[in-house]
Amino acid sequence: MGKKALMPLANGFEEIEAVTIIDILRRAGVEVEIAGLGRYEVLGAHGVAIGAETTIEDAESDNFDLIVLAGGHENAMSLAGDAATLRTLRKMRDDGKLIGAVCAAPIVLAQAGVISGDFTCYDGYEGGIEGAYKRERVVESGNVITARGPGTAADFAFALVTRLIGAEMTAQIKRAMYFD
Amino acid sequence: MGKKALMPLANGFEEIEAVTIIDILRRAGVEVEIAGLGRYEVLGAHGVAIGAETTIEDAESDNFDLIVLAGGHENAMSLAGDAATLRTLRKMRDDGKLIGAVCAAPIVLAQAGVISGDFTCYDGYEGGIEGAYKRERVVESGNVITARGPGTAADFAFALVTRLIGAEMTAQIKRAMYFD
Repeated sequence: MGKKALMPLANGFEEIEAVTIIDILRRAGVEVEIAGLGRYEVLGAHGVAIGAETTIEDAESDNFDLIVLAGGHENAMSLAGDAATLRTLRKMRDDGKLIGAVCAAPIVLAQAGVISGDFTCYDGYEGGIEGAYKRERVVESGNVITARGPGTAADFAFALVTRLIGAEMTAQIKRAMYFD
Repeated sequence: MGKKALMPLANGFEEIEAVTIIDILRRAGVEVEIAGLGRYEVLGAHGVAIGAETTIEDAESDNFDLIVLAGGHENAMSLAGDAATLRTLRKMRDDGKLIGAVCAAPIVLAQAGVISGDFTCYDGYEGGIEGAYKRERVVESGNVITARGPGTAADFAFALVTRLIGAEMTAQIKRAMYFD
């Protein structure tokens, strides 16, 4: 059966991170739902407007194999204050599902209380996050995968694909996209 | 005075390429106009819908320092058949302005007749393009810069920033995004 991923997205998201994750997951055959915070169009930190297929509230009752958060300061702050996002993160943690966050978004995981082991994030956000901060491109700790920023978004997406689908699919997509 | 860039965009564009170029150029202070082919919302090859600020027809009369094309097969085919895009490319060439294309999009430059020296593109598109094909990540030949695909989009964008703004700005943005 196919894998499903949810990406909650609010205004101020980092565009390269969001789109790199969505594009690579979809190339791997993962069904990705872009869920806007209360709206069907969200505006990125650098002025790129992206359409959402659903809202976070409507997506909450659905089942996903992965919840993944892009960064961008305003996006992360909004998601950290959104009850449906926090409930979904806790439900995914309790169900043993995969959770990912990049850049500023690990603070949303901290707000939901779903992060405790090793993690990374954009420099400066580590202060408010429990666990052991690692200054690495991508950090895997149990079912929680974190990454540093736009320049590590592809590595992060490939780590998610490897966990959801397998290493062979990752190698194949990397080659086709000239990421190898 | 600030620099201005035009990105004509049609349905089927490669999302990582388009958004990586726009994001990095805007971080460098370049004003980027996303110009849809006859519409204000364009749908990427992997289902991501992006808002356009203008249409190619409306942007044609404006002045730009750079015209840059993302890839995606359908996007490139549509732009290669669009008279306004081809006219704008020729005008930019005649004015000695910077021209960039990645992935499948060098075939649009070939259709406009603005490519003649060394170039690169996504494997398989080189057949219909005059000039000397180089299997390299990014190729600069006079005012024409080409690149291979999604995995080389950031390198391509940084080459454009270096030409438009300077190497110091490129180094600064690379560092802030963890691309170094």
